[in-house]
Amino acid sequence: MRKVTLGLASSLDNYIARKDGGFDWLHWSDEVAEISAKFMKTVDALLIGRKTYDGMLAYGQTSYPGAKNYVFSRSKKKREMLKKRLAAKKKPDRNVEIVTEDAAKFVRELKRRKGKGIVVFGGGELAKSLFEADLIDEVVLNIHPVLLGSGIPLFHEMKQQIDLELVECKVLKGGYLAVTYRVKR
Amino acid sequence: MRKVTLGLASSLDNYIARKDGGFDWLHWSDEVAEISAKFMKTVDALLIGRKTYDGMLAYGQTSYPGAKNYVFSRSKKKREMLKKRLAAKKKPDRNVEIVTEDAAKFVRELKRRKGKGIVVFGGGELAKSLFEADLIDEVVLNIHPVLLGSGIPLFHEMKQQIDLELVECKVLKGGYLAVTYRVKR
Repeated sequence: MRKVTLGLASSLDNYIARKDGGFDWLHWSDEVAEISAKFMKTVDALLIGRKTYDGMLAYGQTSYPGAKNYVFSRSKKKREMLKKRLAAKKKPDRNVEIVTEDAAKFVRELKRRKGKGIVVFGGGELAKSLFEADLIDEVVLNIHPVLLGSGIPLFHEMKQQIDLELVECKVLKGGYLAVTYRVKR
Repeated sequence: MRKVTLGLASSLDNYIARKDGGFDWLHWSDEVAEISAKFMKTVDALLIGRKTYDGMLAYGQTSYPGAKNYVFSRSKKKREMLKKRLAAKKKPDRNVEIVTEDAAKFVRELKRRKGKGIVVFGGGELAKSLFEADLIDEVVLNIHPVLLGSGIPLFHEMKQQIDLELVECKVLKGGYLAVTYRVKR
């Protein structure tokens, strides 16, 4: 069974972006790039929430390279808008697939297929539905030393408690906490 | 000027208690007791939100020993109820003082008075108003390896961003993260 990792950067007060989607506060360094590149080698599928994907598109990025990018959208209207935006690009991006079916059902099947790891990249709401369906195996965070005060939350309210086991905690230059937790079952 | 520390245990998803105030999930160990005792020697004043204090009273505790306990309550009705409950005790607890004035104003003056450190003990709403008035100097957390899913939040939405500097991160037995941040100004 493929491992599903929730992998994100967050503020200490549980936000992944400012209210307007802004991520100017995100820290990037050689150290982060190295950890990220090493991790990305272990995955070949990315799960992205529609709102997060809108943010990517706004920055001119249609996919993360080297992996299949699955974009989840429950709203038919937003989905059609996404498809139009993608179709308007000069070159179609074959790495992107828009998923219209239920995220939990889709990911449950994806986990059973052969392949490398799967990472949930952005989308607190997507993470919530996958946690509630017990489909997330690992949580990898880069906790930034900041209280944003407001923004788009990482962890949303969930039906159940998820017990974790700390696997690793590394302090990066600048006081960033690179933590890895395994979901206990 | 006395240092004000926000010192709390929290879940990875930013809760300090379950929705009903429950803290059955809180971990206590010799290691935690040692850290806590060492820290408590550096403070002589505790700031407690009214809701947190209700929880303390429910457990038969009227104050944390060895320090002045300031309980903040903005509601006159709740305050009178608190006073009645305290008056009904066999022995009056001289360590407790119910604060009726504005928390920020009170703490600003308290910081100027001579004394040891001041700790905000419970009360995400109290912490929010003190952060917004720029009165908190340090954040000390014991981040538990659990997603509670729901509960009483540690960090509430705030008007401004608070930049932090990581001073220390210690991994305790069981995967608890004992972190200390200094508020950057």
